[in-house]
Amino acid sequence: MTGSAAPPAGPVTIVGGTGALGFGLALRLGKAGIPIVIGSRDEQRAQEAAERASEVIPECEGRQNEAAVEGARIVILSVPFRNQSETLTNLKTVLTPEHLLVDATVPLAAAVSGKATRTLGVWQGSAAQQAQEMAPEGVRVVSAFHTVSAALLADLDHELDEDVLICGDRKADKAEVAGLVGAIDGLRPVDCGPLEMARIVEQLTPLIISINVRNKVRAGIRITGLPNP
Amino acid sequence: MTGSAAPPAGPVTIVGGTGALGFGLALRLGKAGIPIVIGSRDEQRAQEAAERASEVIPECEGRQNEAAVEGARIVILSVPFRNQSETLTNLKTVLTPEHLLVDATVPLAAAVSGKATRTLGVWQGSAAQQAQEMAPEGVRVVSAFHTVSAALLADLDHELDEDVLICGDRKADKAEVAGLVGAIDGLRPVDCGPLEMARIVEQLTPLIISINVRNKVRAGIRITGLPNP
Repeated sequence: MTGSAAPPAGPVTIVGGTGALGFGLALRLGKAGIPIVIGSRDEQRAQEAAERASEVIPECEGRQNEAAVEGARIVILSVPFRNQSETLTNLKTVLTPEHLLVDATVPLAAAVSGKATRTLGVWQGSAAQQAQEMAPEGVRVVSAFHTVSAALLADLDHELDEDVLICGDRKADKAEVAGLVGAIDGLRPVDCGPLEMARIVEQLTPLIISINVRNKVRAGIRITGLPNP
Repeated sequence: MTGSAAPPAGPVTIVGGTGALGFGLALRLGKAGIPIVIGSRDEQRAQEAAERASEVIPECEGRQNEAAVEGARIVILSVPFRNQSETLTNLKTVLTPEHLLVDATVPLAAAVSGKATRTLGVWQGSAAQQAQEMAPEGVRVVSAFHTVSAALLADLDHELDEDVLICGDRKADKAEVAGLVGAIDGLRPVDCGPLEMARIVEQLTPLIISINVRNKVRAGIRITGLPNP
């Protein structure tokens, strides 16, 4: 998988786009020329975040989550694990098989006031598989964006140079997300296999947090040995 | 953590050194000037492997596992998960608090004829934690070497350029293993936190296997953002 796939046509919606990871993705994708819709439970917070983003990217609006999803082809779900289930329940009436749902949720034990270097067991196997189970029939789910630092995404002066690990059950869907990733300078998409591999990839967030704490850095992941470094 | 720590004084024993990963480590560590003892359940197989290794490295002998452990300071445990428990039971009388046990075991589902892209749940949390539980009181356990390709280790013409992720509960033990890793050209040790983090790091083997299958490569892991790239 390389970054050569086309970036998406039409706006990308980021549900939870007021959070650190979602906002960082909004800036980077917006900077790549992709129209962005920031979604939040609270319409006013969404609009405030969109105004802040609009200072550095050309096209960004803020809407309440359900309204933000309408008209989007790609929907990035970037919410704390604590809110993932409730958010997906609220999106049930608006998500359709037209949507490609990119789940970035990580079941950190921090959701129940545990450590950010530990995860919770999710009965479905991973947060992404929970998203697949909860999303309406036909919505395609791909898992991505677990290892990129929110702070480094939001710092547009920082040159990214790392990989985004992608899991999903359909090659076409992963290629579409690869196009999205490849649109961001310095990020390389890597196909990690079916959605069930999200069980592993979601664990990389607490691993990186542990490395960050020990080394006072903002680490990321690079897969070595691939033909396109 | 950098590679600047000293390589170990005295021989390094590799229990399961006739296997692909163990043999590759024997070659690389031996090439770094460290005397190697290859251990196997079968003394003759150990000696045959040591003879093969001796064609390219200066000091290598082969012994039956229990005899191989005596006199070593660092013991690398590199056996299939299926054999880890039995091997540790057999080593109970010879492992002492003098030994630093470096566990490289990965609980691949392949142990029960499942997929190599899936793992088994280990009640203790990880194979490394099982090793800690089974080893005699006082034996120090560190987890490492899960993400380096056995084939690339054994190919001495290949220039390694990747990280080895290390988990353990004592900084001094991890520094000792970091010295071992740093003795191998092209490998960088990265401290990933306490031994419980082996739950995550052991999962990287099936992740890499999945990436290898999809990309026909021999992948490894590099942590980005660290000061010493």
